[in-house]
Amino acid sequence: MTIDLARARALDAEDPLRACRDRFLLPDGIIYLDGNSLGALPAATPERQRRAVEQEWGTSLIRSWNDHGWIEAPQRVGAKIAALIGAQPHEVIVADSVSVNLFKLIVAAASLTPERPTLLSEAGNFHTDLHIASGAAELVPNLGLEIAEREAIEARIGADTNLLLLTHVHFKAGFRFDMASVTARAKAAGARTLWDLSHSAGAVPLHLNRDGAELAVGCGYKYLNGGPGAPAFLYVAEHLQEQLVSPLRGWMGHAAPFAFTDDYVPAPGIARFLAGTPPILAMAALESGVDAFDGITMDAIWAKSVALFDLFASLVAETCPALACISPADAERRGSHISFRHPHAFEICQALIAEGVIGDFRAPDVVRFGLTPLYLGFEDVFRAVAIMADILDTGRWRDPRFAVRGKVT
Amino acid sequence: MTIDLARARALDAEDPLRACRDRFLLPDGIIYLDGNSLGALPAATPERQRRAVEQEWGTSLIRSWNDHGWIEAPQRVGAKIAALIGAQPHEVIVADSVSVNLFKLIVAAASLTPERPTLLSEAGNFHTDLHIASGAAELVPNLGLEIAEREAIEARIGADTNLLLLTHVHFKAGFRFDMASVTARAKAAGARTLWDLSHSAGAVPLHLNRDGAELAVGCGYKYLNGGPGAPAFLYVAEHLQEQLVSPLRGWMGHAAPFAFTDDYVPAPGIARFLAGTPPILAMAALESGVDAFDGITMDAIWAKSVALFDLFASLVAETCPALACISPADAERRGSHISFRHPHAFEICQALIAEGVIGDFRAPDVVRFGLTPLYLGFEDVFRAVAIMADILDTGRWRDPRFAVRGKVT
Repeated sequence: MTIDLARARALDAEDPLRACRDRFLLPDGIIYLDGNSLGALPAATPERQRRAVEQEWGTSLIRSWNDHGWIEAPQRVGAKIAALIGAQPHEVIVADSVSVNLFKLIVAAASLTPERPTLLSEAGNFHTDLHIASGAAELVPNLGLEIAEREAIEARIGADTNLLLLTHVHFKAGFRFDMASVTARAKAAGARTLWDLSHSAGAVPLHLNRDGAELAVGCGYKYLNGGPGAPAFLYVAEHLQEQLVSPLRGWMGHAAPFAFTDDYVPAPGIARFLAGTPPILAMAALESGVDAFDGITMDAIWAKSVALFDLFASLVAETCPALACISPADAERRGSHISFRHPHAFEICQALIAEGVIGDFRAPDVVRFGLTPLYLGFEDVFRAVAIMADILDTGRWRDPRFAVRGKVT
Repeated sequence: MTIDLARARALDAEDPLRACRDRFLLPDGIIYLDGNSLGALPAATPERQRRAVEQEWGTSLIRSWNDHGWIEAPQRVGAKIAALIGAQPHEVIVADSVSVNLFKLIVAAASLTPERPTLLSEAGNFHTDLHIASGAAELVPNLGLEIAEREAIEARIGADTNLLLLTHVHFKAGFRFDMASVTARAKAAGARTLWDLSHSAGAVPLHLNRDGAELAVGCGYKYLNGGPGAPAFLYVAEHLQEQLVSPLRGWMGHAAPFAFTDDYVPAPGIARFLAGTPPILAMAALESGVDAFDGITMDAIWAKSVALFDLFASLVAETCPALACISPADAERRGSHISFRHPHAFEICQALIAEGVIGDFRAPDVVRFGLTPLYLGFEDVFRAVAIMADILDTGRWRDPRFAVRGKVT
């Protein structure tokens, strides 16, 4: 064996991030390997949420827009996220969902170069990205969506390319693009790149400014621990902000939302990408989730992610021969989850959940485990793989109840 | 005087909705006349929110999508709202913001009749509606936004009219359109009507089916008491649902969200108007807000609204001669708020807030008071107007601190 339980515990004892686990409330008897789908509950969130509901809403009521900083929440939380992704504070704002933000940026950015007809994305990209892209492409004159296999994308970038829409870390196997090199390649061809950071933000080190990124969106409820359906964020590089006009011209993106004028004048800077009234309770939960990163560097988080992954991969290689790892061995080319292929991935996933190991199934045949260094330890990985090996060895996943599908599977 | 304090108290004692006040947590010393901007906190919401955060998210984690009905929340809460607005349960869904929902329905509906070039709306409509409409019109080929004065709108409907976008109850003075007659007038000309119910849902009796309404959106955080920035709803009449395709094709509106296919296939029925992952914590708060209407008819609420309005108007007429009421005297032509014009409306509003009477200012010269029968009584109205009369009589609003503007004013 790579290691035994005692060694796993020793690794936890040496782990500089070990104390971060106390920043989260994790249920007893559960090993949670799905923080890439829904981040765990930060310990500070229940009280923060209670305050938002009872004090800010219940007691201060409408006055909280000014008195409790509700009106600045999209910018304030955006600035905190900016610090995690290598952006300037005024380049990130929290708003809407990833889907809606993708739509805003695709339409706004593609409209800048109408002579370029191709919106280029990856086959097998997270499907909401492709669906939103197809809807946006139908609305922008002369724009069409083209989908290429991952290996063919860079070669496909050309004079016709308007916008390259890529997910930085792939949701399934976890392949990661080299942001700097792909962005530069697109830029050299005169195209812009829009990055979906849903599986990257709070997971891998990001340097949006350094890597020349101009446009990005990301998710609040995965590694940022903002709660189910948390609002998303979007990033627009400073130099591009004044050139873009959101197709979703809601009042909160207006230069003077409370002047109530019929004419639309976009707000200066990143605020123009707001649409409707920001969801304050959800925003409070997201802020609390992002605050769980306080004082921790993304480099420290990433170093532990790599160690957790390597342990997970080697334990599975030794004890679960039926599982084929499909995530990259090279840490520089992956995100913070590990995925395996098995014809009965669905049933294995259900059997694991029944024994307290929560990962998730991704159709048609992938079982996926999120590695969240803030609240996951080496003993967790050791125990999870031991349970999985036992489930496979004994064939416990063949129990017919594990073949029953829920609505979300 | 119309009435005295004793009579106001007697009216409260006779009020069949009096007990509903206990369904809300209202701060001491405050008369809250801004429930049309942000509904008050329902008494059940803190515990419901605590459960959503600590139990559903914290303990059940990702399993709650199935185990706690998260995935059905948009439909479930939508069906509850449907009961308040005269729609069938499967015609309403909760999603995104009013702004985003307007965009979806304008683009989807206008695209059905591309030979009709005019998107028609009202000058001075709530500005987010006009801004969203202008953005949508730019994206739909051949469509242009035309804005007409309220009195001229019906006459302006013609063979060129594609879609009529109207706010049912106007946010400022509270004028209400006759939904049945305007919808019929548009339909006779071959045009569709999209109603913004932000100041109507939970405030006035609505009969969307009976009145022939085909498309509507509405707000969750006003009379529905869903909390600051609560998700919004949208309504599409059954017969129209399969004809419309949302321009915001997020995964939750896909026929098979968990099949992860590249091709977009809209979900059958109202679910196709979902975009990204629904905001579950905000959805729980909205559901609790809508549940505060349990067992109460909109007719009972409206009858009390009329009585509160009439008392407010007559007390102001007697004791505040400097204020000009701009809301309709005819109850059938108004909503559930009352507005007054005064050159120093801003300062008067601030002075009132300083003395515990919360209404709001609407630029440039309107002070507006929301009448929310579930938690507002006749004594509240009596006291609020008495304080306002005294502020006007003494000129206390001239204190320079009341001229200081916040970000939200």
